[in-house]
Amino acid sequence: MAEISLRRARTIIRKTLDHGKAAGMKPLSVIVLDSGGNPIAFERSDGASPGRYQIAHGKAYGAVMLGMPGSAQMKRAEDQAYFIACANGALGGALVPVPGGVLVRDGKGRLLGAVGVTGDTSDNDAAAAKAGIEAAGLEAEV
Amino acid sequence: MAEISLRRARTIIRKTLDHGKAAGMKPLSVIVLDSGGNPIAFERSDGASPGRYQIAHGKAYGAVMLGMPGSAQMKRAEDQAYFIACANGALGGALVPVPGGVLVRDGKGRLLGAVGVTGDTSDNDAAAAKAGIEAAGLEAEV
Amino acid sequence: MAEISLRRARTIIRKTLDHGKAAGMKPLSVIVLDSGGNPIAFERSDGASPGRYQIAHGKAYGAVMLGMPGSAQMKRAEDQAYFIACANGALGGALVPVPGGVLVRDGKGRLLGAVGVTGDTSDNDAAAAKAGIEAAGLEAEV
Amino acid sequence: MAEISLRRARTIIRKTLDHGKAAGMKPLSVIVLDSGGNPIAFERSDGASPGRYQIAHGKAYGAVMLGMPGSAQMKRAEDQAYFIACANGALGGALVPVPGGVLVRDGKGRLLGAVGVTGDTSDNDAAAAKAGIEAAGLEAEV
Repeated sequence: MAEISLRRARTIIRKTLDHGKAAGMKPLSVIVLDSGGNPIAFERSDGASPGRYQIAHGKAYGAVMLGMPGSAQMKRAEDQAYFIACANGALGGALVPVPGGVLVRDGKGRLLGAVGVTGDTSDNDAAAAKAGIEAAGLEAEV
Repeated sequence: MAEISLRRARTIIRKTLDHGKAAGMKPLSVIVLDSGGNPIAFERSDGASPGRYQIAHGKAYGAVMLGMPGSAQMKRAEDQAYFIACANGALGGALVPVPGGVLVRDGKGRLLGAVGVTGDTSDNDAAAAKAGIEAAGLEAEV
Repeated sequence: MAEISLRRARTIIRKTLDHGKAAGMKPLSVIVLDSGGNPIAFERSDGASPGRYQIAHGKAYGAVMLGMPGSAQMKRAEDQAYFIACANGALGGALVPVPGGVLVRDGKGRLLGAVGVTGDTSDNDAAAAKAGIEAAGLEAEV
Repeated sequence: MAEISLRRARTIIRKTLDHGKAAGMKPLSVIVLDSGGNPIAFERSDGASPGRYQIAHGKAYGAVMLGMPGSAQMKRAEDQAYFIACANGALGGALVPVPGGVLVRDGKGRLLGAVGVTGDTSDNDAAAAKAGIEAAGLEAEV
């Protein structure tokens, strides 16, 4: 397996949204990016604010382009703010370096892409992404 | 009804993709935008090229932001190229003014959003979008 | 095979440059992008002008993101100039829609990425790219 | 000698990558820019994340355009954050002001260009660049 199929991306999104609902989270939005940083699928829950595509995208895009999940990006931003600010500039201003940008790997550890979740607290967003990825039989690096 | 629910957006996308497959089209990508021009849902078929999000988005975004479906934008681009060029600049360079950007209305004619489809010929893209919108019980202006 | 390894990208570049020298072409520059549109390797020949990275990149980037080689992009630009102009905007202004942006496929027809060549005439650029890709055991769609 | 030839740029890249492998570093990506800030050659190791071109470029680009290696840019960013932020704006948002952007000089101290390395810690990135530059018979200012 070297790519996330659309079928599997749908499963990730549904299971992420199910996790959020079951846990009483606010309405979530979820994107799945491929290993090149390009969108495969996105869904925004009813009631979520209109800018959620950009936030979900930014979380996942930074994760896959830098090979660092949101938690690691956030730590780097806290340790060395100008690095993340400048990496953001170099990558077109799209990054959202907080938890909820989660790397997706197959069983052999190969990077397949990333999932970005937004809508509740960053940690809850990341937990929902992890649940969705694992429900699809893949491995999550939060 | 004043908005496209996520459930209905999913139906539009599935039915659009089903139409494309049944008609032997190339792998399609489909976006649904709300009446504010913001993404509700997107899917890229396996085998579609990686830049299809941007093309699908541009078709739908121009349609909803200008209130003109892709066919009307194309006619305007042919009649008055500088208008579309400048509208594109004013709208952030996102437009893709060809068929496949289709307005979505409810039974009372109210604008609910737009669907953007890309992957086959522009006319086939538009036909698939129309099929998907109508299968969801809404009206399409191609 | 689902990706172009760095080793293979080097072979493509060397063979492309060799082809250009053997054919008496001007100094070429060559980029290899992966299937997500991200750079794997680039080389600019001595004597080439300084802006050749951007031109080589634009040729290959448009090819992989749209799934259309440079010759097809050029035909579309001639038939429907505003479509390519607007697709360019949607893809960040990077496109260079002329021959020399060549798709790379494996033996099963799967898209692995694209090669961009610039420095001589567009048709010669494309011929050099094709020679380099085939010398690496892959298939070229010019 | 006033320029880095492609042959020498290749040597720098190979020796940088060899140093990284021998030292057990993560997969590195390496760019060589000329004295005008324009790319001569780039290679991304297998397994590196897809956004590494932009990071390697930003490290080297800031170094050559400001005449300051990454370590000096980082110190300036820590001492006077708004200077680096504004220089970054003036230079198109491309800077990545941390170690790993290394100036390249000839034996007479003339600036020939810069090397940008990314993939491991910033200090390791800089050490690998230094090793590659020196292996090519040139002088490194880290």
